Amino acid sequence: MTTKTGEIAGDASLAPIEYADASPEVRAIYDDIMATRKADWINNFWKYLAHDPQNLRRIWSDLKEIMGPGALDPLTKELIYIAVSITNGCRYCISSHGASARAKGMSAAQYGELLAVVGMANQTNRLAVALDVPVDGRFAGGNSITRT
Amino acid sequence: MTTKTGEIAGDASLAPIEYADASPEVRAIYDDIMATRKADWINNFWKYLAHDPQNLRRIWSDLKEIMGPGALDPLTKELIYIAVSITNGCRYCISSHGASARAKGMSAAQYGELLAVVGMANQTNRLAVALDVPVDGRFAGGNSITRT
Amino acid sequence: MTTKTGEIAGDASLAPIEYADASPEVRAIYDDIMATRKADWINNFWKYLAHDPQNLRRIWSDLKEIMGPGALDPLTKELIYIAVSITNGCRYCISSHGASARAKGMSAAQYGELLAVVGMANQTNRLAVALDVPVDGRFAGGNSITRT
Amino acid sequence: MTTKTGEIAGDASLAPIEYADASPEVRAIYDDIMATRKADWINNFWKYLAHDPQNLRRIWSDLKEIMGPGALDPLTKELIYIAVSITNGCRYCISSHGASARAKGMSAAQYGELLAVVGMANQTNRLAVALDVPVDGRFAGGNSITRT
Amino acid sequence: MTTKTGEIAGDASLAPIEYADASPEVRAIYDDIMATRKADWINNFWKYLAHDPQNLRRIWSDLKEIMGPGALDPLTKELIYIAVSITNGCRYCISSHGASARAKGMSAAQYGELLAVVGMANQTNRLAVALDVPVDGRFAGGNSITRT
Amino acid sequence: MTTKTGEIAGDASLAPIEYADASPEVRAIYDDIMATRKADWINNFWKYLAHDPQNLRRIWSDLKEIMGPGALDPLTKELIYIAVSITNGCRYCISSHGASARAKGMSAAQYGELLAVVGMANQTNRLAVALDVPVDGRFAGGNSITRT
Repeated sequence: MTTKTGEIAGDASLAPIEYADASPEVRAIYDDIMATRKADWINNFWKYLAHDPQNLRRIWSDLKEIMGPGALDPLTKELIYIAVSITNGCRYCISSHGASARAKGMSAAQYGELLAVVGMANQTNRLAVALDVPVDGRFAGGNSITRT
Repeated sequence: MTTKTGEIAGDASLAPIEYADASPEVRAIYDDIMATRKADWINNFWKYLAHDPQNLRRIWSDLKEIMGPGALDPLTKELIYIAVSITNGCRYCISSHGASARAKGMSAAQYGELLAVVGMANQTNRLAVALDVPVDGRFAGGNSITRT
Repeated sequence: MTTKTGEIAGDASLAPIEYADASPEVRAIYDDIMATRKADWINNFWKYLAHDPQNLRRIWSDLKEIMGPGALDPLTKELIYIAVSITNGCRYCISSHGASARAKGMSAAQYGELLAVVGMANQTNRLAVALDVPVDGRFAGGNSITRT
Repeated sequence: MTTKTGEIAGDASLAPIEYADASPEVRAIYDDIMATRKADWINNFWKYLAHDPQNLRRIWSDLKEIMGPGALDPLTKELIYIAVSITNGCRYCISSHGASARAKGMSAAQYGELLAVVGMANQTNRLAVALDVPVDGRFAGGNSITRT
Repeated sequence: MTTKTGEIAGDASLAPIEYADASPEVRAIYDDIMATRKADWINNFWKYLAHDPQNLRRIWSDLKEIMGPGALDPLTKELIYIAVSITNGCRYCISSHGASARAKGMSAAQYGELLAVVGMANQTNRLAVALDVPVDGRFAGGNSITRT
Repeated sequence: MTTKTGEIAGDASLAPIEYADASPEVRAIYDDIMATRKADWINNFWKYLAHDPQNLRRIWSDLKEIMGPGALDPLTKELIYIAVSITNGCRYCISSHGASARAKGMSAAQYGELLAVVGMANQTNRLAVALDVPVDGRFAGGNSITRT
């Protein structure tokens, strides 16, 4: 692995942990990732996270629970994930969840609209804060996850 | 209007611009907002933004174009808007777009899942950056809005 | 509950879920929170999160695993939590983890130094990005969690 | 185009849309960008955004309106743009608006002072939030865009 | 001081440190703040920061150096400060530097344009990151504070 | 220096200022950095910041004061610095302070736990804001740096 400028040469400790080199504990999680996703490979995020098996296990377990079928369909969840990742500036996450979204059917037109909404929200978020706009009485309950 | 601590008493210049007090230019935009939304009131964001009519016109015009029907359905757009607003910490926007989402049918279960995805994305975004995970070759094109 | 400006009057759906009103599933988690913390009350974060029991369970389970004794002592973990919360501007989290840190022995002098480091890091983070400073070759492995 | 690690080889779908390959709709916007800026080339931002012509048109139209002469001179607007871009960590935007600012006369001394202010603001923003400092009564109206 | 919900009643330790109660060390800094600003009062930020005199001294000393006359005029520096504060969502800082900017002559029209630029920059920052736009060769040196 | 895509060729103005080329003013600061750190080299951050000697002097002076021994031990300060840097997405800072932390004894297990806490805090920060959780009365004083 190299950095942007190529100054940092290979350091074994930085290498992603490949399946062949993984401990049985890590390998079991890799197996579950591939089985859940019906894939035959592991993307880099997990191979880097695997340096700490406890983090690997917890994050994967949570992601598996959260991103599966539910009240929101899987593609909508990916769009939400991308929106957050763009706002936080996570290049890896934009790429990986962008790929997931396309695999789940995201069209170019949908991606263009996603970008439009994300851009606009980032703009109006700042304006609402700058203007210190008070929440309208009619929006009461806007933060709740249940309502009558 | 008062601040959090109630120390700042009313200042006429801070008042939202109500319809009755608005210039014809601003009133025309208010009319378009209400007609587009089939509503009989204007929420505070626009009434504060109206102190600069050019900003009011441009932001409303953009929002109208972006949030209307398209390749993504209006509810999905609201969910994306909320996800960005939570990530940026805009309380007003969470409330206003939360209300819009509920008006468009968002259920409590859907909101719970939205929160789960937003929370998880904020977590993994930071981990991917911390670990400096390189983008997988298989994700090529993840940033593009078109693909073959 | 009221908003900053007092415009939003009580809405039952916004109420925190108190122990007496909680489902058996939620109550069991509340019990575990109190037992783990040797406390006789539940702070608001959990009572609001409880509107979605799955989120409540997962977040609590993760937090319990992460914040317990380990290679880092519990006070250091709280300091790290506060540093992130200040950077993200989460008032609730600054208050709640500030209270936890004090309960674990954080002194006023330590908090003053924490603020100094957090302020300085927020400053130099921006300067390093602005200047596009390339990572020094000698820092190779800076992102790794293991090294030889 | 390649990624940081060089793993992602050329993918036609990722290519910026050059003038020669652009649709008449996109080409007309390119022409307006060049005419407005008295330039004979288009910078990459527009060539990537052009994959969604509606986004290209709206963002350019807005930027043209906002960055032109007004109550603030064009150089001051560029400095503000850079300050936001540094705070958000947008490398492309720092470079492109840095170039615009220099073209409009920004000196090295001015850039050094811009960095100093941006760094300091990022520091005190966090401290003010951490300390939960209440707004002084004398600052009433600080969020308004009009005042008596 | 009270919190948003009024649940937290007065706690002596939370009180700002008034001039009359300040140590000689803190009082000397307060005197310098007032003398530098030709003011007869101290705003809350310093009175809360004063709980840690070392932080008070260092931050004030830096701010005094940075915000004074230089290659950028004082009003431009305030505009930059506000732009960062809006982007970071620091309500106190928006109010305090908004007041400073108005005292230095910022007009309502200028503030409206500041908001427009800040909103637009927050939008395009995200789009440039989402699209992973490579820096144009012609922008070389965009990050430098010196140029030929 | 080259950019990510290699499009920007060397520009003398972008070069870090090496010791041999530094002015006496800059060289004196470099000497103090090396003496303080008992090191025989200067990392890139300072060499880029040195284009503005006033910024170099002020930032170094502050950092030296803040990161030295105090109520918090130097390693804990580094962990806090890394936590902020991850949250802000500053790759350079994660690498440089990661190296400092390892030099001060940070183990792989400690780094794994740091990542876990940072990831969790970023998650719950967003959830607390989304749910608009009011601060508990028992947390009164959570923002203070002193308490009875």
